Amino acid sequence: MPLISKRGRLIPASPIRKLAGYAAEAKARGVKVYHLNIGQPDLPTPRKALDALRTIDRTTLEYSPSQGMPSLRKTLCGYYSRFGLDVAADEIIVTSGGSEALLLTFMACLDPGDEIILTEPCYANYLSFAITAGVTVKPVTSRIEDGFALPPAEAFEAMITPRTRAILICNPNNPTGCLYTPEELERLRQIVLKHDLYLISDEVYREFVYNDTPYVSALSLPDLREHVVVIDSVSKRYSECGVRIGMMVTHNKDLYASILRFAQARLSPPLLGQIVAEASIEGTEEYSKACYDEYKARRDYFIDALNRIPGVYSPMPQGAFYTVASLPVEDAEDFCLWMLTEFEYRETPDSVPETVMMAPAAGFYADRSIGRRLVRMAYVLKIEDLERAVKVLTAALEVYPGVRR
Amino acid sequence: MPLISKRGRLIPASPIRKLAGYAAEAKARGVKVYHLNIGQPDLPTPRKALDALRTIDRTTLEYSPSQGMPSLRKTLCGYYSRFGLDVAADEIIVTSGGSEALLLTFMACLDPGDEIILTEPCYANYLSFAITAGVTVKPVTSRIEDGFALPPAEAFEAMITPRTRAILICNPNNPTGCLYTPEELERLRQIVLKHDLYLISDEVYREFVYNDTPYVSALSLPDLREHVVVIDSVSKRYSECGVRIGMMVTHNKDLYASILRFAQARLSPPLLGQIVAEASIEGTEEYSKACYDEYKARRDYFIDALNRIPGVYSPMPQGAFYTVASLPVEDAEDFCLWMLTEFEYRETPDSVPETVMMAPAAGFYADRSIGRRLVRMAYVLKIEDLERAVKVLTAALEVYPGVRR
Repeated sequence: MPLISKRGRLIPASPIRKLAGYAAEAKARGVKVYHLNIGQPDLPTPRKALDALRTIDRTTLEYSPSQGMPSLRKTLCGYYSRFGLDVAADEIIVTSGGSEALLLTFMACLDPGDEIILTEPCYANYLSFAITAGVTVKPVTSRIEDGFALPPAEAFEAMITPRTRAILICNPNNPTGCLYTPEELERLRQIVLKHDLYLISDEVYREFVYNDTPYVSALSLPDLREHVVVIDSVSKRYSECGVRIGMMVTHNKDLYASILRFAQARLSPPLLGQIVAEASIEGTEEYSKACYDEYKARRDYFIDALNRIPGVYSPMPQGAFYTVASLPVEDAEDFCLWMLTEFEYRETPDSVPETVMMAPAAGFYADRSIGRRLVRMAYVLKIEDLERAVKVLTAALEVYPGVRR
Repeated sequence: MPLISKRGRLIPASPIRKLAGYAAEAKARGVKVYHLNIGQPDLPTPRKALDALRTIDRTTLEYSPSQGMPSLRKTLCGYYSRFGLDVAADEIIVTSGGSEALLLTFMACLDPGDEIILTEPCYANYLSFAITAGVTVKPVTSRIEDGFALPPAEAFEAMITPRTRAILICNPNNPTGCLYTPEELERLRQIVLKHDLYLISDEVYREFVYNDTPYVSALSLPDLREHVVVIDSVSKRYSECGVRIGMMVTHNKDLYASILRFAQARLSPPLLGQIVAEASIEGTEEYSKACYDEYKARRDYFIDALNRIPGVYSPMPQGAFYTVASLPVEDAEDFCLWMLTEFEYRETPDSVPETVMMAPAAGFYADRSIGRRLVRMAYVLKIEDLERAVKVLTAALEVYPGVRR
């Protein structure tokens, strides 16, 4: 029997995946599970986008161009201009979700053994894409005590070696909800320039910024035209994660040409997703405003409620729809598992039993031991359900038999 | 300005891409270009599949499971059983086209520096996926004189080193149209077993087999359950290349688990494509029969007509919808370029000028010098257009001013 490759053995199963099986079993037992663990918005896809499918007038669903349909890329230029960003259609490559944009960008910017610096806790799949690309991750840890702000310049400098090729940020941040300030981005800019690095900036949550700090795209940072790649996706903005449409944007023509060649090898991004995405971007301002208001209301409710639970602390996320909170337990993974396997809450003896699924934050760290007391929660449920989830979590923490702190 | 990665500089632009720009310019000049260069079928997508889109009743286009929708995978099991293959739903991972199935399989089977043996001429993107995965390609050359039959065992044995991990075949073959006989597959089977290798078998053209030689799937080879990965795709079968739905099939549970982790990192395959694919597989027998008859008639016409052009030789392809033919020129790439930039054919002085685009075969060889006199042609045009293309090609060869042989 031939062996699995080394990278094939290294690539991690996420802790969420392990818990998902237990969640399914809990549901099979009749337990209602509130899913705070995933970033799958519960909001509907814009009707205009669904109508574009229902009225499709093609007879052949043929390949689209490797860089994406010209009409979609043109529409995206208009979209970016709303944020003051001057992007040309031939500076955009449409991909199979933000995931593929990240992977192709890694491939073109870094070789196996090269190093990428990222802030942790980070989106767990960054670590998987790094293994896929053979790239070494050098984590710079942001701290819950600082609201997961960008770590100081010295922390980045300490990680730089001759093999460092790129810094990867997510802004607004998944999983922390942190939005980097202009000062923090200026700090990053100087490091990137000093060491001639790529700055890969995942900005898929740009429309979900809840405070008065301005959103600053890496694309607008001075003198970084050749350094910056922005990763983007329509998934969360229009609640259409399933259509798998993301994109990468760069002003660097050589890098663009290289990423395009990787993209040409896989022929084209999904045609139908592009049709949906294009229909989602214009004429949906009301939809976007309603989504924004809904997420903001959820955030305002949820973070306040979490901080009222004894021993729980969450910073105030300023963007995206996640928070990383600390729980008064020694091992959040054990607690999350216990909630799905042993705990259930009943409002009255006759009520439907309820529990909550959360994502242990260990999986968001390169060194899994760091985030042991933390969980990521996504506020992608309606407020009534968030209220139930908070009630259930409160009750669970009162009776959890595991090690506390 | 930061440097592009080494792999980012190595990844080739295909010769077709270079010619595509000239084809566009020819069209802009009013020249009608017959595209024999690409595998984009001109046939319509099954109406049943398009109807599945037009009647979609979802309100949210959410993530699907990383391994693909259970209903699609179940439908695929029924599909494979038509070919006598016993495949379980949890032996299938649905991917973004056959492209992603290949890339994820490479990732799980091979590490950077490992070697994969493939027969050339080969599908050009195999070479790009190998560069993406950091894998070294060891080509075994099949010869037009042998009808591109599988090279002898000694040719494979000569390429095997301690780093050899897999053999990759395409059967029926793109670009040659060759179908491997049971004897040839038995030869491969013995090599794979002897050296404990993976056998990756791209069988996306299984429904297009035109002669009486039986189609043998690698999945049915004895004692290779742990060795075989089959790459598949609905793109060509149902003329839905744009939906980007492929799949990989393996009985090897460890390998499946590893590929699934790579697949989990990219979250999910395209939802809408899966809906289209599922609707395409059952209840479309008449559609498939009509497509088959059409391609067979085209093959019968086209290969005969090609061989009547002085100096042109094409073996009789027994599957897929391509052939690799030799032309009486020294440099097919130059000839293809000349046809798009300098040549045009007019039936009468007032007729619309015409030309033909073909794919120079050099791009289908790891060593590009080998295929210099060869071109790949896809018979994906209706017979009237193939007739015109043959007429144009004949006229072009009569007046080509470049080096002949």
